[in-house]
Amino acid sequence: MDMRIEHDTMGDVEVPSHAMWGAQTQRSLQNFKIGSEHLPRVLISGMGLVKKAAAITNAELAQIPQNIAKSVIDAADEVIAGQWDAQFPLVVWQTGSGTQSNMNCNEVIANIANQKLGQPLGAQYPVHPNDHVNRAQSTNDSFPTAIHVATALHIHELLIPAVTRLRDTLHAKSETFAPIVKIGRTHLQDATPLTLGQEFSGYVSQLDHALLRLEHALNGLYELPLGGTAVGTGLNAHPAYAEKAAQHLATLTGLPFRTAENKFEALAARDAVVFASGALKTLAVSLNKIANDIRWLASGPRCGFGEIRIPENEPGSSIMPGKVNPTQSEAMTMVVAQVLGNDTTISIAGASGNFELNVFMPVIAFNILQSVRLLGDACNSFNDHCAVGIEPNKDKIEYFLHNSLMLVTALNPIIGYENAAKVAKTAYKEGKTLKQVAVELNLVTEEQFDAVVRPENMVSANVK
Amino acid sequence: MDMRIEHDTMGDVEVPSHAMWGAQTQRSLQNFKIGSEHLPRVLISGMGLVKKAAAITNAELAQIPQNIAKSVIDAADEVIAGQWDAQFPLVVWQTGSGTQSNMNCNEVIANIANQKLGQPLGAQYPVHPNDHVNRAQSTNDSFPTAIHVATALHIHELLIPAVTRLRDTLHAKSETFAPIVKIGRTHLQDATPLTLGQEFSGYVSQLDHALLRLEHALNGLYELPLGGTAVGTGLNAHPAYAEKAAQHLATLTGLPFRTAENKFEALAARDAVVFASGALKTLAVSLNKIANDIRWLASGPRCGFGEIRIPENEPGSSIMPGKVNPTQSEAMTMVVAQVLGNDTTISIAGASGNFELNVFMPVIAFNILQSVRLLGDACNSFNDHCAVGIEPNKDKIEYFLHNSLMLVTALNPIIGYENAAKVAKTAYKEGKTLKQVAVELNLVTEEQFDAVVRPENMVSANVK
Amino acid sequence: MDMRIEHDTMGDVEVPSHAMWGAQTQRSLQNFKIGSEHLPRVLISGMGLVKKAAAITNAELAQIPQNIAKSVIDAADEVIAGQWDAQFPLVVWQTGSGTQSNMNCNEVIANIANQKLGQPLGAQYPVHPNDHVNRAQSTNDSFPTAIHVATALHIHELLIPAVTRLRDTLHAKSETFAPIVKIGRTHLQDATPLTLGQEFSGYVSQLDHALLRLEHALNGLYELPLGGTAVGTGLNAHPAYAEKAAQHLATLTGLPFRTAENKFEALAARDAVVFASGALKTLAVSLNKIANDIRWLASGPRCGFGEIRIPENEPGSSIMPGKVNPTQSEAMTMVVAQVLGNDTTISIAGASGNFELNVFMPVIAFNILQSVRLLGDACNSFNDHCAVGIEPNKDKIEYFLHNSLMLVTALNPIIGYENAAKVAKTAYKEGKTLKQVAVELNLVTEEQFDAVVRPENMVSANVK
Amino acid sequence: MDMRIEHDTMGDVEVPSHAMWGAQTQRSLQNFKIGSEHLPRVLISGMGLVKKAAAITNAELAQIPQNIAKSVIDAADEVIAGQWDAQFPLVVWQTGSGTQSNMNCNEVIANIANQKLGQPLGAQYPVHPNDHVNRAQSTNDSFPTAIHVATALHIHELLIPAVTRLRDTLHAKSETFAPIVKIGRTHLQDATPLTLGQEFSGYVSQLDHALLRLEHALNGLYELPLGGTAVGTGLNAHPAYAEKAAQHLATLTGLPFRTAENKFEALAARDAVVFASGALKTLAVSLNKIANDIRWLASGPRCGFGEIRIPENEPGSSIMPGKVNPTQSEAMTMVVAQVLGNDTTISIAGASGNFELNVFMPVIAFNILQSVRLLGDACNSFNDHCAVGIEPNKDKIEYFLHNSLMLVTALNPIIGYENAAKVAKTAYKEGKTLKQVAVELNLVTEEQFDAVVRPENMVSANVK
Repeated sequence: MDMRIEHDTMGDVEVPSHAMWGAQTQRSLQNFKIGSEHLPRVLISGMGLVKKAAAITNAELAQIPQNIAKSVIDAADEVIAGQWDAQFPLVVWQTGSGTQSNMNCNEVIANIANQKLGQPLGAQYPVHPNDHVNRAQSTNDSFPTAIHVATALHIHELLIPAVTRLRDTLHAKSETFAPIVKIGRTHLQDATPLTLGQEFSGYVSQLDHALLRLEHALNGLYELPLGGTAVGTGLNAHPAYAEKAAQHLATLTGLPFRTAENKFEALAARDAVVFASGALKTLAVSLNKIANDIRWLASGPRCGFGEIRIPENEPGSSIMPGKVNPTQSEAMTMVVAQVLGNDTTISIAGASGNFELNVFMPVIAFNILQSVRLLGDACNSFNDHCAVGIEPNKDKIEYFLHNSLMLVTALNPIIGYENAAKVAKTAYKEGKTLKQVAVELNLVTEEQFDAVVRPENMVSANVK
Repeated sequence: MDMRIEHDTMGDVEVPSHAMWGAQTQRSLQNFKIGSEHLPRVLISGMGLVKKAAAITNAELAQIPQNIAKSVIDAADEVIAGQWDAQFPLVVWQTGSGTQSNMNCNEVIANIANQKLGQPLGAQYPVHPNDHVNRAQSTNDSFPTAIHVATALHIHELLIPAVTRLRDTLHAKSETFAPIVKIGRTHLQDATPLTLGQEFSGYVSQLDHALLRLEHALNGLYELPLGGTAVGTGLNAHPAYAEKAAQHLATLTGLPFRTAENKFEALAARDAVVFASGALKTLAVSLNKIANDIRWLASGPRCGFGEIRIPENEPGSSIMPGKVNPTQSEAMTMVVAQVLGNDTTISIAGASGNFELNVFMPVIAFNILQSVRLLGDACNSFNDHCAVGIEPNKDKIEYFLHNSLMLVTALNPIIGYENAAKVAKTAYKEGKTLKQVAVELNLVTEEQFDAVVRPENMVSANVK
Repeated sequence: MDMRIEHDTMGDVEVPSHAMWGAQTQRSLQNFKIGSEHLPRVLISGMGLVKKAAAITNAELAQIPQNIAKSVIDAADEVIAGQWDAQFPLVVWQTGSGTQSNMNCNEVIANIANQKLGQPLGAQYPVHPNDHVNRAQSTNDSFPTAIHVATALHIHELLIPAVTRLRDTLHAKSETFAPIVKIGRTHLQDATPLTLGQEFSGYVSQLDHALLRLEHALNGLYELPLGGTAVGTGLNAHPAYAEKAAQHLATLTGLPFRTAENKFEALAARDAVVFASGALKTLAVSLNKIANDIRWLASGPRCGFGEIRIPENEPGSSIMPGKVNPTQSEAMTMVVAQVLGNDTTISIAGASGNFELNVFMPVIAFNILQSVRLLGDACNSFNDHCAVGIEPNKDKIEYFLHNSLMLVTALNPIIGYENAAKVAKTAYKEGKTLKQVAVELNLVTEEQFDAVVRPENMVSANVK
Repeated sequence: MDMRIEHDTMGDVEVPSHAMWGAQTQRSLQNFKIGSEHLPRVLISGMGLVKKAAAITNAELAQIPQNIAKSVIDAADEVIAGQWDAQFPLVVWQTGSGTQSNMNCNEVIANIANQKLGQPLGAQYPVHPNDHVNRAQSTNDSFPTAIHVATALHIHELLIPAVTRLRDTLHAKSETFAPIVKIGRTHLQDATPLTLGQEFSGYVSQLDHALLRLEHALNGLYELPLGGTAVGTGLNAHPAYAEKAAQHLATLTGLPFRTAENKFEALAARDAVVFASGALKTLAVSLNKIANDIRWLASGPRCGFGEIRIPENEPGSSIMPGKVNPTQSEAMTMVVAQVLGNDTTISIAGASGNFELNVFMPVIAFNILQSVRLLGDACNSFNDHCAVGIEPNKDKIEYFLHNSLMLVTALNPIIGYENAAKVAKTAYKEGKTLKQVAVELNLVTEEQFDAVVRPENMVSANVK
């Protein structure tokens, strides 16, 4: 490969001639040949946004010349837009502060800017990666700021809309299914009836709560470390910088970012991300319930619960028609397992800061952003390829409802508890219906039975 | 043992003569000889509160006679107060709905009430455990209500005050330590200075955030399932019951409990507890950082960081004076490990509901209440036996600060970056102080050095 | 309370007059008012065994007089037997080395011994808690030795027999159920048939593997830290002590304990416990599958899979006969959730050692022993109250088997794949049986169908 | 994009003209737009190996023609070698059985084979993806077989050599450092001395144990599900197939694979992977201790422990020479956090099988293989860029050792415990050395002190 020589404080480094990155990125490539997990696209955008906001602020505060700022901003815009993702080759498993990815971003932006100004790669002139792009920043405040920005944006742009879509679909189903009375199940055992609409309304409520919890989580993510620089004191930054930079990030993103009141916490802890992961984990737990219920309700076609039908998206088996594997539920519950594991990782990483810095930032970023992405994508996929197509299997629902022994409850007021119990026990023992037995025992007439045993009257609070 | 005979729908059961519990509790004792973990005191109180609120409401709605309600309320008050804890012998590892503990509570309250009215144990008259104590309830709504009530109360009465106390102590330390400039550390390596007060302010900020997160968590716990009865429909309850009972629980506890809008979610999911566990886990993560920092800062006495001194509470070693083991940090970090594990348990349990019910409720209750208790107690213990007694070791702080090579930064404006770097490198290589080297190299005079290299000027945003 | 005064290196301590413990235990009681979790009985036994083995060894090596050794051994025997459990009042959340519980044991044994010799409590004469009971030990080697001993014993005495019993019951069921052909299910969907015996044989195989994994786990637990003393060097111990003491522990317990080759690892890491927890976690995962399958297979009675019946142990509902809640499965799966959480706790604690010591030992001990206990008890309970009573519901099994569309596979060789698919599709669409449709379409006669479609021929490798 | 039309049992599908995959892969691409995580390279190899072994076996058993087998084998070889990785575009979040990845493999191999025989893509002739490539297989047995094969190979080829290299490096260091006596630390506090070699020997022992645990884990992975086909019965396979195919896999890989005794367990459970993850997790825990110790020991350069020096691989700071950030430790501990989270994911996924199949297989495969890869790569990186270059900082070690108060222990036999304690206390209080104080108090002469207080005599069992 064609190489050029770059320098840093430790000496010369060979960098591929056409690489937009520089010496420090190259050293990381050589020193961390671990896995293949890269920092995700949204984090590259997040870093770009931080560089842009910093440049705007530094220009306002007369810390860098206007024309330099303009060059940095233009280059950052291209990074934000995703034009240079291939120039971010580093893996997650690097310096725990993310220094090397931060320098990667500084180097790429400087090279983009200088190249436009006719300079060769590596010129570091007129735009310098440290003095201009990283101005008034340390990795220690700019990288976690990028994490907060990227996570909040990803939750807003992907996850909340996806959860909302699924919620709306389930809500529509809940309304459509309102008149369908079915058997309830507790402990997996037959219980008193409810409507299919009520059952689905529980899922809707879970997602409504999830959306509220995401708001709680976002609240913490809106606090930004930027301006704390190396250890939280703000050394080498202008006193007005932190607040202004946060305001610019708010303007650039449309989200209410604000500067963290305490920069020592903001650098040394990633608690807001740990809490956000707790909210994502809770959403995962909700989705697990929903996806599981749906696959069990759709189990069959003949030898399961089979109360609903789900879309047939791919051949379940080359030989058995009607074998619709609940693959969207399977994908969803696998995502749930991943998100729960990610939460463990994030908790451990978040608990492991020392003194003025938490050095588990890349792994925290990787996991929280993966959780957001997977939950968002999985909600969309589950919505489009499963939820929208759910249909009740009314025959099966009817069959179970009227076959259930639980309806005997309705006879209590007429024939008394003891007789009712006798009816149910006999029906169970002899494999008969309640009506058969009740009539055979001369406790009620067929007409009386039909008048009284009406499951549709058992689906709401009913005591006078 | 002296036994009496009780009956339930499955037949006769021998119950110890003096036991206040009845047949169903006894069956559970026989069928679940698993471990020795009991439901905690606060949950017994929580169940008592639910029974009391239900009785008040049922009397108001004319579902049970006033005098029966009075008897139930009086008995419940004794259960709430802890007078009958020994009569709750069941373990966590029972029916997943908590049915047996709910029946235990019904049986005990009925026996207390009937005994006062001169009836023998087991009379079930005039107060009946099902018809009166459990009136308009199913385990499926009353047990999770008790979990929410107990957890919210425990967080309010134990945890929030404990976190606040520790926060206030650390805040006072932060103010006292405000003038003490010390070396910062990132990556465990020497970095630019900050004050000891700033370092402690980060801990305060972590706990301030924790308190806010607990509020978010409580918000979900205030929603109560009561009134959903067996499957969420409210069958066998009066339409006004749910709301009124929640209001009574709010009045009885002083907390803003309200009836859950959707009872299907409220029975089938325990998401609010999962989310609360996420908030507790985040608090644990914060406490881990704080407790770890403190033990590392106190490490020594001679061969560690030794920048602070912590109280000597017990002999660390029979032979070495000054060996103060950081035992409160050790207890705290063990609690953290437990809370993180409990969070895994709660997440798995919360994800495992099916259809109309989650049947992992006792294990959820056990873990969330253990987490609250341990965090609360540990904060109090850490506060009283460690935090209040933390003192700076000024000699060590001074020694490190002035020995550090990092201060060379301050010379940059005068002698230039290259010379400054040369000073630092030489000092490191030859084991000298910065001042020695700078003067030896004729770059500054001793006076100049002292005038410029002032760490106290490096602890805030300083760029003009 | 009546108090006596004891002394330690930090001064006077008031101890309850009749307490068998001394000053250091008392200080811990005062300094660690955290939770209510005590070290379990088996660990007290484990500590007693260590003290006994040490005393025997010290006497052999002429480090303590024979009569003193005899007194220590006799007292230790009573501790091992459980006579003095009430004298171990400390909680888990104490010094991370377990120092205070180790001293508790030293103090109690010394007091037992001295009391028999006519001395008052607290005399420390002629048997001294440090010089004699703790002779040639540090908490740092004796406490983890007690953890290994207690865990290995608990696995041997409780868990392996319990797993074996459940395995044997399931194996007997598997043989009894060998002739019962039933529908298979993959993705929760109907699939090709197998026998109920084959299905249960899978559970047996899971437990067989679990027993092997427990052996792997025990192998590491057999290595003992004893003899490493304070930092692993063996300072203050006789060179022959470590090996001899381990041999005595092997003799006393009948288990192949041996001294750890490397005492630095043995003190600073608890990896063998972490690995053992991994084996317990895997067992939990297996039991989860088994307990879940059984409750789903037993779901109903009318509106579920209902292919098996499980024992009715307690009233599932006061009104619905035949509602058998799968409470043993519920208890088991709650235990599983706990064991998975404990595994997280143990992993975090195990990962957190520094330099010469891991100071998360009490929480590690507490969790691993809880996992062993809960799994052992739950296997016994599940066996006795569920597994032994499982019966096939042949009607339901038959119904599903012959109703399934999957059997159409058997027609392929006669009527061709396309016709077979047509039969299945038509049957599904029109809600008919395969036979009906195949005959209606004139593809086979009823006799031909019955001759060919024989599920019992589909339950083994069958290609020639 | 140019498209061709393919068919499956559900109808027509447009597939990119040059894609080697077919209809079922294409449907998965459309239905599962979730995340960007692909099945790793080693799993593609694993699938290729399974297809190859199956083809060899099927030819031997006369189930497919020799020339067809030859074509399949040749194509599989290319897949195994990695020539067609770009043709495996599916994500992890798909059908839980991995059906779509299995079909992807079948389709790609058939197309490779047919293309060589002059057929157009999608011809399915003469080599048919189902009838030939997937012959005698179901996804349900072949996919988990590929998981076992890939994981075992990855452990053998990457992880064991990497752990061994690191172990050997640390062992060499341990021997080199054998003469260097240093202060020990327990509870982070100064303790009795040991040698730096002894300290490192503990790490070696941890890794020696880890290697043994990996062997235990491999033992379970060697059992293969292949031959169980759809539900474990082996339907559609030849009775001799399972054993022969496993033998071929053993021959092809050089690893002792064998057919699972019980195929029902082999399909429905992934317990062997759960257990293997437990072994990886334990290794992670060990590596955490090692990486943490090393970064703490290297902390400084001036204001930390600083007892060792680690290689300077990249600029730690542009201004402070000697600031060597322990970046390899940081990468390693981030990997550890990930592996612990992966273990949670694998446990949950492993616990969630139902009836005849576990449908969390892709997520299990993804996580176990990521854990193996990350641990292996991280060990190599840590070895090459950190461990090999560790050097003792003898000045600092000496300074701490002789400054420590702990050495006073050595005076006990000469001046008595009380005087020794007095010396230590005075030294601590007045900030003096033990020697100063002991001489000042006229307890020993300088010569006596030097003769007796010799740390090198305190690093082994020393009692006579």
